[in-house]
Amino acid sequence: MESPRFDYAARIDRARAAMAEREADALLLSVGPDLPYLTGYEAMPLERLTMLALTPKDAVLVVPELEAPRVEPGPFETRPWGELEDPIDIVAGVVGGARSVLVGDHTWSAFLLSLQDALPDARFASAGPLMTSLRIRKEPDEIGLLRRAAHAADRVVARLAGLEMSSLTEREVARIVADWTVEEGHDVDTFKIVAAGPNGASPHHEPTDRVIAEGDMVIIDFGGRLGGYCSDTTRTFVVEDPTPEQQEVHAVVLAAQRAAAQAVRPGAIPAEIDAAARRIIEEAGYGEYFIHRTGHGIGLEVHENPYIIETNSQPVEPGMAFSIEPGIYLPGRFGVRIEDIVVVTDDGVEPLNRSDHSLVSVG
Amino acid sequence: MESPRFDYAARIDRARAAMAEREADALLLSVGPDLPYLTGYEAMPLERLTMLALTPKDAVLVVPELEAPRVEPGPFETRPWGELEDPIDIVAGVVGGARSVLVGDHTWSAFLLSLQDALPDARFASAGPLMTSLRIRKEPDEIGLLRRAAHAADRVVARLAGLEMSSLTEREVARIVADWTVEEGHDVDTFKIVAAGPNGASPHHEPTDRVIAEGDMVIIDFGGRLGGYCSDTTRTFVVEDPTPEQQEVHAVVLAAQRAAAQAVRPGAIPAEIDAAARRIIEEAGYGEYFIHRTGHGIGLEVHENPYIIETNSQPVEPGMAFSIEPGIYLPGRFGVRIEDIVVVTDDGVEPLNRSDHSLVSVG
Repeated sequence: MESPRFDYAARIDRARAAMAEREADALLLSVGPDLPYLTGYEAMPLERLTMLALTPKDAVLVVPELEAPRVEPGPFETRPWGELEDPIDIVAGVVGGARSVLVGDHTWSAFLLSLQDALPDARFASAGPLMTSLRIRKEPDEIGLLRRAAHAADRVVARLAGLEMSSLTEREVARIVADWTVEEGHDVDTFKIVAAGPNGASPHHEPTDRVIAEGDMVIIDFGGRLGGYCSDTTRTFVVEDPTPEQQEVHAVVLAAQRAAAQAVRPGAIPAEIDAAARRIIEEAGYGEYFIHRTGHGIGLEVHENPYIIETNSQPVEPGMAFSIEPGIYLPGRFGVRIEDIVVVTDDGVEPLNRSDHSLVSVG
Repeated sequence: MESPRFDYAARIDRARAAMAEREADALLLSVGPDLPYLTGYEAMPLERLTMLALTPKDAVLVVPELEAPRVEPGPFETRPWGELEDPIDIVAGVVGGARSVLVGDHTWSAFLLSLQDALPDARFASAGPLMTSLRIRKEPDEIGLLRRAAHAADRVVARLAGLEMSSLTEREVARIVADWTVEEGHDVDTFKIVAAGPNGASPHHEPTDRVIAEGDMVIIDFGGRLGGYCSDTTRTFVVEDPTPEQQEVHAVVLAAQRAAAQAVRPGAIPAEIDAAARRIIEEAGYGEYFIHRTGHGIGLEVHENPYIIETNSQPVEPGMAFSIEPGIYLPGRFGVRIEDIVVVTDDGVEPLNRSDHSLVSVG
């Protein structure tokens, strides 16, 4: 599907209001999700600069001439630059005498350094807090896309339960996951972790040529994008019969996942949601093997605010979407992680992922 | 395949020598190709900072604890940071009183701004020129990987000549290209442009649900990575019989592509290679429709130095690899682009792509 069109004029108005609150004279956005959030246009992550320069009076999308045909018109001026022009000069011209400039978090440092040279009197700061304030509470249409992406991911999980994994490599299973992610409705697959046996102890493991064998626990964590919005879910399978220890570790992680998900409601504190999961894992004696936070926000980005971590005491609010994904990682042996996306509703929580949470045996 | 291991100790030595020449006290590398070039380790492009801090005496890879198991040991110290630590503090501690700090070009601005706050007495500049000086001349093993990737891409092109494209959408063809890119030997596919009919006039078009029809010119530009190194090739097909105008435009682009490729040899000036292609297109009356440079370097990145552009007068040298890809883009009608990767040899040029350059008709 094509990305849906949102009310970009309203979003740009909100950005300008947030700039005024922060006494910022200019907002500069390049690669990453902030630019499509405000304009519907995503910059290519290449060496030719694409940048929205937003000031109280101007909104100019500076874009390489050869990419200009990709821009759909919106509440901004498009300024294509030719191969022999300097886009930094063009951006500097738009923001003129700005004293306080906010720069999108993913903007390449090379461009920020050039902008700092071109605007020596400006003070540069991260646009992250401002953009988070706009993006962290999702609109109903954004939640609709997250829900559709999550359900597409759930259909992939259902198919995985019937996959004969034994004697396939992690890489082969990853390729199947990628294909199914698209077949089930995503526009693209974005990532896939397939971590069998001892590899499961590495939370961000990348698929290798390791052949999956009987007795392996297999963590499968994957996602795609649908209409710009991300899915991200994890289930842990076992090949043939689990050992009692594998069953126990899986049961502990599942209990932790449920406890944290049930702690989500408007006003809940991320640190407390994290603690709900962590307490169960600690009490079962595996505390030192749960080496990451409990979750991360999700939307246009697969990881974004709010983070469900001990250091975050900002209460969650309706419209926020994030993962709940505790795990236990036993070095040299195996790992278990279970992950769902949830959305805070007006009076509780909507879990977006509903695929089987139990320890599913595969061939 | 797994990424091959290069002589990272020698590369770090060369980086330190280049730092000394530039009077730089520290080199900080994060996401992007510079870090794997020096260490074999690629940072995940996520919100948790990964950064190599290189000084004349220290080489410390600061990495999120949950990603530390992915690091293969090398000539550097690995410093995992836990979820409750601040990685900026750790990097600042390593570089200490550095006055001149070079930062990798793709590093997220959010991290650079935090580092500038943490090291108020340091002067920050782009690490781009230093890293280019190391990476621009490829080692024989790097050329070997570029060659294998190019040949894998050529096999995809050969299969495309037999594909019944008519009545498929651009998006469906793109999916086929992605699958074949992997089947023919790449580790991953990285991008695919499928631009049919009028969409071909947009050089960086993204595949849509447009159905490919008889009479369409179809630009297919795609690539993947093999052992970390990129392929990137373009051919323009026609569905059924071309019109005389389509044949003429294709012939002009092909002549331009050949002329530029033949201009490549040690000491050739990129501006002159660019001019060799541009002259032919201008003389045929299509000059205003060739709206981009003639080529870009390729290696760990799909676009890197050297750029084959009018403004580049730095002679090319043996070991440099880049694309030659002129195009003609007729707005609202169609486009043609033909692209090969070439490598400068000791006494001339090796074209890495050897698939059919003629205007191939498909069903």
